[in-house]
Amino acid sequence: MPKIRFTVSLEENLLTEFDQVLKHRNYTNRSEAIRDLIRQNLIEEEWEEGAEVIGNITMVYNHHERELAHELTHTQHDFNDVIISTQHVHIDHDNCLEVIVVRGKVSEITQLYNTLKATGGVKQCELIRSTTGQLLN
Amino acid sequence: MPKIRFTVSLEENLLTEFDQVLKHRNYTNRSEAIRDLIRQNLIEEEWEEGAEVIGNITMVYNHHERELAHELTHTQHDFNDVIISTQHVHIDHDNCLEVIVVRGKVSEITQLYNTLKATGGVKQCELIRSTTGQLLN
Amino acid sequence: MPKIRFTVSLEENLLTEFDQVLKHRNYTNRSEAIRDLIRQNLIEEEWEEGAEVIGNITMVYNHHERELAHELTHTQHDFNDVIISTQHVHIDHDNCLEVIVVRGKVSEITQLYNTLKATGGVKQCELIRSTTGQLLN
Amino acid sequence: MPKIRFTVSLEENLLTEFDQVLKHRNYTNRSEAIRDLIRQNLIEEEWEEGAEVIGNITMVYNHHERELAHELTHTQHDFNDVIISTQHVHIDHDNCLEVIVVRGKVSEITQLYNTLKATGGVKQCELIRSTTGQLLN
Repeated sequence: MPKIRFTVSLEENLLTEFDQVLKHRNYTNRSEAIRDLIRQNLIEEEWEEGAEVIGNITMVYNHHERELAHELTHTQHDFNDVIISTQHVHIDHDNCLEVIVVRGKVSEITQLYNTLKATGGVKQCELIRSTTGQLLN
Repeated sequence: MPKIRFTVSLEENLLTEFDQVLKHRNYTNRSEAIRDLIRQNLIEEEWEEGAEVIGNITMVYNHHERELAHELTHTQHDFNDVIISTQHVHIDHDNCLEVIVVRGKVSEITQLYNTLKATGGVKQCELIRSTTGQLLN
Repeated sequence: MPKIRFTVSLEENLLTEFDQVLKHRNYTNRSEAIRDLIRQNLIEEEWEEGAEVIGNITMVYNHHERELAHELTHTQHDFNDVIISTQHVHIDHDNCLEVIVVRGKVSEITQLYNTLKATGGVKQCELIRSTTGQLLN
Repeated sequence: MPKIRFTVSLEENLLTEFDQVLKHRNYTNRSEAIRDLIRQNLIEEEWEEGAEVIGNITMVYNHHERELAHELTHTQHDFNDVIISTQHVHIDHDNCLEVIVVRGKVSEITQLYNTLKATGGVKQCELIRSTTGQLLN
């Protein structure tokens, strides 16, 4: 993808401050930092518009909880058309972390998220809004 | 404050998408949109660093609740050095909205906020992180 | 409004941890803390449903900026049906903080917010989601 | 882990509203909903205190970008003591989604996150705050 250039006009103090923050956050390139701000803005827009999106659902639960693992797997299979893959981490003897990468319509993903979150015994359930990256090429 | 100019290089598609969002959000000027993204970033930094900041505390409560209005006023007087002014709106027969503009150290403002939020009968209490605008000139 | 009581069952450790956080955040009453969590949840729901809501728009700008104060006042008058009152604080020689208390439909308030935020020279513009408190009685 | 029971007193309207939201969000059990609100509160506290935490970093990037995949792998190896595992999804011909599960001190995880986010060509980089679940037993 070819890059194009455009000019931003800015108060001098504002730029000085921004450059200090960039240094603090490891950026070596001002354009890259501004591209990141723009992309973040566009990702929020993608999700608000309800288009096809990508993201993940991060869950923590205790696999000793009666029937819980079974119930969570069952729910995931009901939504297999929006689930790409699941990464499972054994945190300790009892606790599991599961990261479910999802892709599909915002409405369907939200429904899966609500169902998992409301399942008894799930300790945490977060929906992470990511992007297919296609708008961001 | 004089403005300076700098150049950002960007993938063409990314810029096209960004311009569409700007239109949707009423921006007529791309530089202004980027300045807004940068400023928002700097305000978050100000608050994380714990410097002198400005903000407001927005509260909803029922003034018929026994002793509540008295207690909230009492707390505000204990923190009068960080409170600039308070705006009071009568929502209906029972409910009040109060917006307390605050200025001072993050730690002091947070303490005031925690005290108000934990007061029995307060229905909502939010801390809004704003800026003295001085870094943003 | 009469209060009713209901029972929550909870893992012992979870309650111990929660009580420690409450102490740290100045709560003296566990029911009050849980009511606050519930109310916050309901306020998010109110705004998502697009009903009649109350909130405020917090803005920082430089009143020396040419025509800016005039333009912002003009916009506010276009939306006078959703604006209840405005609190103005003189931060320093240049900067103003303005808190505009708004009440109305989510869509109208969002439109006002987008217009103010996109106005050139506005350094910060935040929309604070509050509540009429009526659902929360 | 044995459960204990405690009583919450609440305005009747507030409970009616809350029950409606729970239904809308698929909860069948009021205690479970309140446990979720409490856990979310405790997870925020864990991260603020800087203790040992678990979470993930979600990244989108274009693997055709020169040297980028190599650079990201290099960074991950520098922080191998906080990385548990990485899940890689091929979004399309160009774009990759990578979910890196991390565990360690907040400060180290934040450093890894800042380094990845600032790498040129990374389109999105989000830090998801999860929990070891140990406080939440």
